[in-house]
Amino acid sequence: MIKVSIIGSTGYAGIELVRLLNSHPQVSISHLISHSHVGKAVSDLYPNFRHVTDKICNPLDVHAISKDSDIVFTSLPHGKSDTIVQFLHKEGIKVIDLSADYRYQKVSTYENWYNRKHENPHLLKEAVYGLPEIYRNEIKNANIVGNPGCYGTAAILGLAPLVASKLIDQNSIIVDAKSGATGAGKSLSQGLHFCELSETMRAYKIASHRHTSEIEEILSLCSNEDIKLSFTPHLMPLKRGILCTMYANLEDSFDFNYIYDVYTNFYAKEAFIEIYNDNIIPEPKFVNGSNSCHIGFVVDERLNRIIVVSVIDNLIKGASGQAIQNMNIMFGIDETMGLDMPGWYL
Amino acid sequence: MIKVSIIGSTGYAGIELVRLLNSHPQVSISHLISHSHVGKAVSDLYPNFRHVTDKICNPLDVHAISKDSDIVFTSLPHGKSDTIVQFLHKEGIKVIDLSADYRYQKVSTYENWYNRKHENPHLLKEAVYGLPEIYRNEIKNANIVGNPGCYGTAAILGLAPLVASKLIDQNSIIVDAKSGATGAGKSLSQGLHFCELSETMRAYKIASHRHTSEIEEILSLCSNEDIKLSFTPHLMPLKRGILCTMYANLEDSFDFNYIYDVYTNFYAKEAFIEIYNDNIIPEPKFVNGSNSCHIGFVVDERLNRIIVVSVIDNLIKGASGQAIQNMNIMFGIDETMGLDMPGWYL
Amino acid sequence: MIKVSIIGSTGYAGIELVRLLNSHPQVSISHLISHSHVGKAVSDLYPNFRHVTDKICNPLDVHAISKDSDIVFTSLPHGKSDTIVQFLHKEGIKVIDLSADYRYQKVSTYENWYNRKHENPHLLKEAVYGLPEIYRNEIKNANIVGNPGCYGTAAILGLAPLVASKLIDQNSIIVDAKSGATGAGKSLSQGLHFCELSETMRAYKIASHRHTSEIEEILSLCSNEDIKLSFTPHLMPLKRGILCTMYANLEDSFDFNYIYDVYTNFYAKEAFIEIYNDNIIPEPKFVNGSNSCHIGFVVDERLNRIIVVSVIDNLIKGASGQAIQNMNIMFGIDETMGLDMPGWYL
Amino acid sequence: MIKVSIIGSTGYAGIELVRLLNSHPQVSISHLISHSHVGKAVSDLYPNFRHVTDKICNPLDVHAISKDSDIVFTSLPHGKSDTIVQFLHKEGIKVIDLSADYRYQKVSTYENWYNRKHENPHLLKEAVYGLPEIYRNEIKNANIVGNPGCYGTAAILGLAPLVASKLIDQNSIIVDAKSGATGAGKSLSQGLHFCELSETMRAYKIASHRHTSEIEEILSLCSNEDIKLSFTPHLMPLKRGILCTMYANLEDSFDFNYIYDVYTNFYAKEAFIEIYNDNIIPEPKFVNGSNSCHIGFVVDERLNRIIVVSVIDNLIKGASGQAIQNMNIMFGIDETMGLDMPGWYL
Repeated sequence: MIKVSIIGSTGYAGIELVRLLNSHPQVSISHLISHSHVGKAVSDLYPNFRHVTDKICNPLDVHAISKDSDIVFTSLPHGKSDTIVQFLHKEGIKVIDLSADYRYQKVSTYENWYNRKHENPHLLKEAVYGLPEIYRNEIKNANIVGNPGCYGTAAILGLAPLVASKLIDQNSIIVDAKSGATGAGKSLSQGLHFCELSETMRAYKIASHRHTSEIEEILSLCSNEDIKLSFTPHLMPLKRGILCTMYANLEDSFDFNYIYDVYTNFYAKEAFIEIYNDNIIPEPKFVNGSNSCHIGFVVDERLNRIIVVSVIDNLIKGASGQAIQNMNIMFGIDETMGLDMPGWYL
Repeated sequence: MIKVSIIGSTGYAGIELVRLLNSHPQVSISHLISHSHVGKAVSDLYPNFRHVTDKICNPLDVHAISKDSDIVFTSLPHGKSDTIVQFLHKEGIKVIDLSADYRYQKVSTYENWYNRKHENPHLLKEAVYGLPEIYRNEIKNANIVGNPGCYGTAAILGLAPLVASKLIDQNSIIVDAKSGATGAGKSLSQGLHFCELSETMRAYKIASHRHTSEIEEILSLCSNEDIKLSFTPHLMPLKRGILCTMYANLEDSFDFNYIYDVYTNFYAKEAFIEIYNDNIIPEPKFVNGSNSCHIGFVVDERLNRIIVVSVIDNLIKGASGQAIQNMNIMFGIDETMGLDMPGWYL
Repeated sequence: MIKVSIIGSTGYAGIELVRLLNSHPQVSISHLISHSHVGKAVSDLYPNFRHVTDKICNPLDVHAISKDSDIVFTSLPHGKSDTIVQFLHKEGIKVIDLSADYRYQKVSTYENWYNRKHENPHLLKEAVYGLPEIYRNEIKNANIVGNPGCYGTAAILGLAPLVASKLIDQNSIIVDAKSGATGAGKSLSQGLHFCELSETMRAYKIASHRHTSEIEEILSLCSNEDIKLSFTPHLMPLKRGILCTMYANLEDSFDFNYIYDVYTNFYAKEAFIEIYNDNIIPEPKFVNGSNSCHIGFVVDERLNRIIVVSVIDNLIKGASGQAIQNMNIMFGIDETMGLDMPGWYL
Repeated sequence: MIKVSIIGSTGYAGIELVRLLNSHPQVSISHLISHSHVGKAVSDLYPNFRHVTDKICNPLDVHAISKDSDIVFTSLPHGKSDTIVQFLHKEGIKVIDLSADYRYQKVSTYENWYNRKHENPHLLKEAVYGLPEIYRNEIKNANIVGNPGCYGTAAILGLAPLVASKLIDQNSIIVDAKSGATGAGKSLSQGLHFCELSETMRAYKIASHRHTSEIEEILSLCSNEDIKLSFTPHLMPLKRGILCTMYANLEDSFDFNYIYDVYTNFYAKEAFIEIYNDNIIPEPKFVNGSNSCHIGFVVDERLNRIIVVSVIDNLIKGASGQAIQNMNIMFGIDETMGLDMPGWYL
């Protein structure tokens, strides 16, 4: 059994980790750390865990965690993981960090977009971006994984085959992303109240959302070019699910089948990627509850433009499920273990 | 492996059976029958099954089903199961029927409330009402199980300990039930359109809903008295979940702890029942996605009345999960197999 | 023109007052008071008012308000209106208070249920409960109106004809109320977040909600008996609308038509009350956006019990619309002025 | 009083016309025509009209309508208005058609995108596209107005100042549109059921939606160039509201203030247009319930690209409200009459 601990276990990504790991056949949970709920049972905060786990939330004690954890998931706000990860790493513990602190190769990109100085820039070189469909080999031997952001996952998976194959004008990329409200986290906020988000829609941080830089860095690495793109996130009145609608000008008049082959070759052996070829466009309800990313696209021959739609469950493939997928890879077990459930649809 | 077939596999309860059985470690699916989608892949109708199953919907052929099925789930509209169940039973196949056709002991009650003549009244004596928390022993040896209705499950589980223990005035029972829209099924209906059900609430079939008779029959059997009660169902703007608020006058001034003991004794060994004793009232989000029923109650000393709140996922404990629980019992395997997932909460 | 000021103008009831009064042909707004948003334009907080009003939120200055207000609406948390109303009253200004502070005739009832000492108990005798369908004559000459609570309005309007006519066993009354989330107000609260209220339902304050006492006091006055009843509020995943499902045992075997006549006589000249007699049960979407209360009922002859369903828009007939209706009556203008819009339905 | 009739009065746009016209001080309704509900009272179909109107739905009789109507609104599926409008026009009745049948100047564009032959192409020259902010002068004297589509209204209002002023590369325009479900109309459809649209999002008719041609035709006329653009509509889990996120490359490094002036000059005297300049991005809840279009934008200096967000209530400014605005203009009365309500926000 892999002994895991979770730091930040009562936020939405953290509690989803608890839920998924609880059913993982090769995992036993050592510590659940929650700054704000020390001493409370997880099942008091989240009564769905009654009869399932009697784990108590502990305060952070990295020494105690080090003693009986093979791997630690850190699910903290950006900037809070930085030194905790460094300590655990020094102790020889593998870490999967769900914040942005270990996602970037270029420390300057991180520091510019997150407006803080990284305290362990040397570790960024060691850390691997935890998108298995692109960095599986590196993840296998990684000790620190920077787990991708939810928007990053959906956008990169949808665009990587196109940029890697040079099918599109890399200056023309636009990512219009729509997310459910769990993506905004659990913190109190007027704008996230039911009465303020129901029956409306909200574009936010236009041209300035931090995930822009994450998407750009990885796609640039995929294409060996310096890609810059427009990214517009929107909050929508649903709980789970991201749908990215992405636009790019085609470099040549590639037809649907040609591009379909590019996608299916790129993702040939991927258990969690599904490419659509039948005029159905994927919806979040097809993937919510699962670790899958479904991708559909339309070639607009009139404009020689491609429109790609990718969907994920932001809490699973966009956060906790992907973290577990990374853990499976790091420990050499079946990558789909604990993650092979279909979406809920209803 | 238990070989199962599902007749009516593309309605909401049917497809939930497919989803849950797909992860059941002891089950292999033989036939998926769908009258309206013959020849289509389940994953075409429900793209959440892409990459998960390539099963095709077949037309109904009871002979073919009989050959390689240990058990058949019939998930058809009321009246449609009647003769199909009879045929399968004759062939020696175990059947769990999700319609009302085999739920009643008294054929007259069924015929009055469902306004049709039962064609196999002799089989009603053999059929067992599939509520394991009350009829587990009978289910073990049953060949036909009439799987309870969703409202029936939530109401009976919430009230059975009270009526069995004679704590309440059995003429004073009121069940005010609120359901998500999946409970109304998949058929086209103006009133079920998003624009007609969002931002509203709807009481329907007041004093005339058929589940009234099911609740009354089982509670009467629990109490050895003839119980009649008010049952008011409401459609609410959510997909999954039933919450029943139930009222009854206490026969004496029983306090919370006394009644709590009655409940916990009644459900002492139940894996799927959770009784609350800490001022939290259960919500559907605690059980949605799970096979659990959570029950809380308040004793109103001012009025000497008890108010009970029970919640279930109408598609799981209220339909497909409970059917699988029954199957597990009928085949002598762990009752929680394939059903031990916590609720989703988010 | 009637000069009005609103104290507490940026909460949900307050801003609804601004919206409705803005279209009232006989009203001019003098002051908008908001403790928490001094100096901000209403249209900055609520951009729906761009191009509509450039009013600025002022701090509370009762002297300034007194100078140019014919009437003041106080829309503050319970306990905060008490002395403000007293001051304005002393200055000869009419006041409609949307809190509970001036709703009760018996100060002890208020003090027990609200757990605070009233500082102006003598004024409770002068204050009138602002439910025009019952207290229209008293409201005409009132200087202080205690505007009813949202649950109170829906429950009392649904039950008053029955208790006044002695049709029901007054010990058997149960009010099961379902409300949209605007009823819970604007204050930050985890449980009111979109992710915590969507796809779930929540019973709360069972047997202890303060509105119980308001409903009991008024119905007791209607019936000249001491009525006690069960009241269970529920939060539902919608923004606006209250639906009350109410149960009572009939004193005799009254039929539908008999009771229908009782209702229609009781509300014979009411512009905002609609009694259903055609097997349709009212829904919030029929009244949301309007000042109407729609009432339907079913006589369950099997149990000799009546089930009444009443619906209102909690922000309009349950708060701000009713306050304006009261103002119209107090100033002798057409009671429906500014309030004669149909519900939105969509 | 202007005598109006509505053909197609029980669809969602039709009934919104009834609701808004009912409060219009200069309108009296002559005939309500509904093919599918002949003989029924509007208030039976839409109980929000109880106590408001006792109008009955009549079958279509153009002669009867001609006798006592100054203007007729036709709110029928595309293709159904074509000859009805022609007849009414011949009788000298003004018509505002809410379908696409009279929106196009080029009959070939209509025929290609709507895949039917227009039977009265000569009338297209007489018909005026009913977007008052662009065609007010033409509307004044029009006898046939082709009322814009909902997507068309939101997109054109958001982009017209940019294309008219040549600020953007007209080959780079992308319109990513998100709509509430009322935009999909009232017809029965599995995909529009609450259970199928709640907690999901749906891109549809990518690169092939008919409104593309309407947006392109009008913007081309605004710019005197042949504009082609990408238009992707999405259904979202809300009832009302359209939010268009629009992207275009700037022709030069124009800054926010420069572009803000272009917008405010373009819409200098418009009562229903609001341009944002304060880092707030408009949301549907700001305009739902009103006839307003709110427009915000961000200049992405990094990419020299502009992102524009426009929002409307699809049933009001996107359909029925705009139709009434056109009627007001055609009859020389105050353009805002009956339409000067602020958005609901809640």
